[in-house]
Amino acid sequence: MRRESAAAGFMPTITPSSPVSAVRQLYLQLRDTIVASILKPDQRLPSTRTAAAEWTLSRGLIAEAYDMLIAEGYAVGRHGSGTYVASGLPPMPVGSHAAQTTTAGMDRRDISVAARRVMQMEMAAPAQVPFATGRVIHDARTAGLLKRLAHRHIDYVTDSYRDPQGEISLRSAIAAHVAASRGVRCEPGQFFITSGTQQALDLAIRVLVSPGETAFIEDPCYPPARQAFLLNGAEIHGMPVDDEGLITATLHAHDAPAPAAIYVTPSHQYPSGSALPLDRRLELLAFAQGRGCWIIEDDYDSEFRYEGRPIASLQGLDPTNRVIYAGTFSKALLPGFRVGYLIVPDDLVPAFRAVRPIIDRFPAPLHQLVVADFLNEGYFPAHLRRLRESYRASRDLLAGMLEDRLSEHFIAPLPAQGIHFTVRSTGTWTDDKALTRASHAAGVIVIPVSPMYVHAAAQSRLLLGFSGLTEAEADIGTQRLANVLGRMQHSL
Amino acid sequence: MRRESAAAGFMPTITPSSPVSAVRQLYLQLRDTIVASILKPDQRLPSTRTAAAEWTLSRGLIAEAYDMLIAEGYAVGRHGSGTYVASGLPPMPVGSHAAQTTTAGMDRRDISVAARRVMQMEMAAPAQVPFATGRVIHDARTAGLLKRLAHRHIDYVTDSYRDPQGEISLRSAIAAHVAASRGVRCEPGQFFITSGTQQALDLAIRVLVSPGETAFIEDPCYPPARQAFLLNGAEIHGMPVDDEGLITATLHAHDAPAPAAIYVTPSHQYPSGSALPLDRRLELLAFAQGRGCWIIEDDYDSEFRYEGRPIASLQGLDPTNRVIYAGTFSKALLPGFRVGYLIVPDDLVPAFRAVRPIIDRFPAPLHQLVVADFLNEGYFPAHLRRLRESYRASRDLLAGMLEDRLSEHFIAPLPAQGIHFTVRSTGTWTDDKALTRASHAAGVIVIPVSPMYVHAAAQSRLLLGFSGLTEAEADIGTQRLANVLGRMQHSL
Repeated sequence: MRRESAAAGFMPTITPSSPVSAVRQLYLQLRDTIVASILKPDQRLPSTRTAAAEWTLSRGLIAEAYDMLIAEGYAVGRHGSGTYVASGLPPMPVGSHAAQTTTAGMDRRDISVAARRVMQMEMAAPAQVPFATGRVIHDARTAGLLKRLAHRHIDYVTDSYRDPQGEISLRSAIAAHVAASRGVRCEPGQFFITSGTQQALDLAIRVLVSPGETAFIEDPCYPPARQAFLLNGAEIHGMPVDDEGLITATLHAHDAPAPAAIYVTPSHQYPSGSALPLDRRLELLAFAQGRGCWIIEDDYDSEFRYEGRPIASLQGLDPTNRVIYAGTFSKALLPGFRVGYLIVPDDLVPAFRAVRPIIDRFPAPLHQLVVADFLNEGYFPAHLRRLRESYRASRDLLAGMLEDRLSEHFIAPLPAQGIHFTVRSTGTWTDDKALTRASHAAGVIVIPVSPMYVHAAAQSRLLLGFSGLTEAEADIGTQRLANVLGRMQHSL
Repeated sequence: MRRESAAAGFMPTITPSSPVSAVRQLYLQLRDTIVASILKPDQRLPSTRTAAAEWTLSRGLIAEAYDMLIAEGYAVGRHGSGTYVASGLPPMPVGSHAAQTTTAGMDRRDISVAARRVMQMEMAAPAQVPFATGRVIHDARTAGLLKRLAHRHIDYVTDSYRDPQGEISLRSAIAAHVAASRGVRCEPGQFFITSGTQQALDLAIRVLVSPGETAFIEDPCYPPARQAFLLNGAEIHGMPVDDEGLITATLHAHDAPAPAAIYVTPSHQYPSGSALPLDRRLELLAFAQGRGCWIIEDDYDSEFRYEGRPIASLQGLDPTNRVIYAGTFSKALLPGFRVGYLIVPDDLVPAFRAVRPIIDRFPAPLHQLVVADFLNEGYFPAHLRRLRESYRASRDLLAGMLEDRLSEHFIAPLPAQGIHFTVRSTGTWTDDKALTRASHAAGVIVIPVSPMYVHAAAQSRLLLGFSGLTEAEADIGTQRLANVLGRMQHSL
């Protein structure tokens, strides 16, 4: 016959397979019961003997959980009399883990203006099926070289906080590389290694643009770049793009205040694929100099040019140091390396050095050291040549299949640069977003261009990535797309 | 006898040892000369024969550089007549790489308000000498385990863009770990893997606090956290701290508007070292719930407790989901891993998921996979035990030397938790910043506490890190400090 009952019908549920120990499970459930005022202040907890019988747990385990409650102030032990819920705990707020959707009055669940701005714009989800952009597949030679270099640098014995600008060996190696290949004029001291182009953009915008200031971006524009400006509170103005890239004449025509910064992709406009000619480059530089604004040059995809010579960087053309240059190894090596960089004018180095550690202290060293050796030991040019040949082969393969199977639906000009086709309609479809949704449902990733427009009338286009594309993937991808387009046509 | 001279005294300087090819060096110098209007529009360039003789370069090399100029629009080739500087190039802005310091009128070199705010506050430079904080040295067993796990995951063949929230294996592993060790209530879907606590803070602030909104921080406060709020435009109010941490009673007394967020280090207040007791934790949660504000819990150093039980997390105590929890493996594994995390309430996941990819797309996968296996395969608890014993030994070693050599100058209470001593003066010195400068000059890194105060009257204190400290380093460090203090005393 029971002398007392475990208070208020409390009955713990202990899951033996949980990674949480049984003692801690019991402690947490008792604590919740106290916090929720199911067990009241000054109420006596059942003795370990009684509780052991009621809860079918060992007395030792219960005693240990009580000790934890006492140690943290939820309970007090009274000598010879047992364990009691502590008195004087402040009243707890009403609510539970389930009650998360309340928005009224005293439970505001506000997020920032910046978060609300970027939530209104969807970003394409990455995926590993045709025709995702930005996938990289290496040949055995490059993969083996990188692995050997990584083994050289893996050292998990000693570590400390490092230079926020990045490893000097990498900065020196990239400086030599971009001077030779891109005509960039720089010293290692001007470098800020980042985890890729996105962090480079975010860093540049944070240093150069205050909330409420204007930024000019290309129209259409690379969506993550537009998001970076939105997140940082900039007022965005889209500057129209034609077959030669940004129409620089519109810079002067624009009646907005002089922008704090202009974001451009001059070597390969994203998504249209054009390259900015020299006269426009010079006009852009003159405008920036005259108005005292910054140019952020995203030298996107400059490594992958299949015909003719690449055009050198805008940065190298600029005698007035108005250009901040962003580059990345995500496409030329692997996205998972997370190594990109920003090259800033000398006199901006102190401002970038102040901001850089606040965003994430310093970049991870391992892959920086691998990339540095890969460059310094001369492997990069031959690797890029092989990768370029592989991408050219994928491009030509996909071009053939698009022609054979989709020429009824797609006009697909052969890209002279970059890692994607930009296709437009022959008239059998009109809405790139609807076609994208239908394609996703069929297991084909394409990227619609119309959401990339800022102010200009949106044009329906699709991006089809071909980097790392195998023949089997191209086959199944084009076949599925043909099916999707056939179905859409019949359902009209 | 010369028929013509290389125009305008132009004479290229080719450096054979440069990583830039001779052709490109010549091309770049010619281009600069054209852009600077030293070679004028429509001016004829010297023939390759003449130039070869004047410049002592091969004719083939010169022809190739001319072709580059023609390809990029700087020059035109006229059949049978030679190569001419292009006409109609827009006038170039005045200036040169050297003229970077102009600030007047048309050459404004503005940086953002955010950058100016953070530049006004200095951050301590990391270094690898005594008594830097945050250095990690592993035993051979942990280093070997980590290396084996890394080799398992190094694969440089295929790669693509990954989940912005981080690897699911790591999120699941940490969820189990923090539930057991820290009383955190979470599912893997609530996790955002970051490159450490700093990026976790920056992410949380960007999602939760708009520019101009108020944030409460501890006074004194962890400086990089304060910088993160400054960078994001928050108005900062310092809330006083006593020997038990944040004085929660002052939250209500403060006449500022309800803050958007409150940043706290409840398990180990930085820099004072106190732990927030239960009644204050509950009062803090009730305040946040009542005013509809967010709490950002930085669970700094919770792994390193040398006496008694650690207090469980604030997050696990909160039934209303007002707490955003930040943790890191920088101290428990290695800073160079760059793996930290944020655990957010379920209903905030969409907002964090929108912002996370904009700051740097996704976290690097390699070390995430290593940490996941290290946790899942059960190595972490034993590793932490060994690391804690090593740190305790370093703490005791340093305590002895401080007592022997510096007790005239320092009152150095033995820390029960964390990886640094907080020492105060016996009266022989008064200015922690002056002492820090003198110590740096003598090769000893200490961190002054007085710059960490926000509004409260600054107290002179020094932080001396002991993680990874060897006996030789402790010996030389304390000896040098004693010398510095002796000299300062005599110069008074």
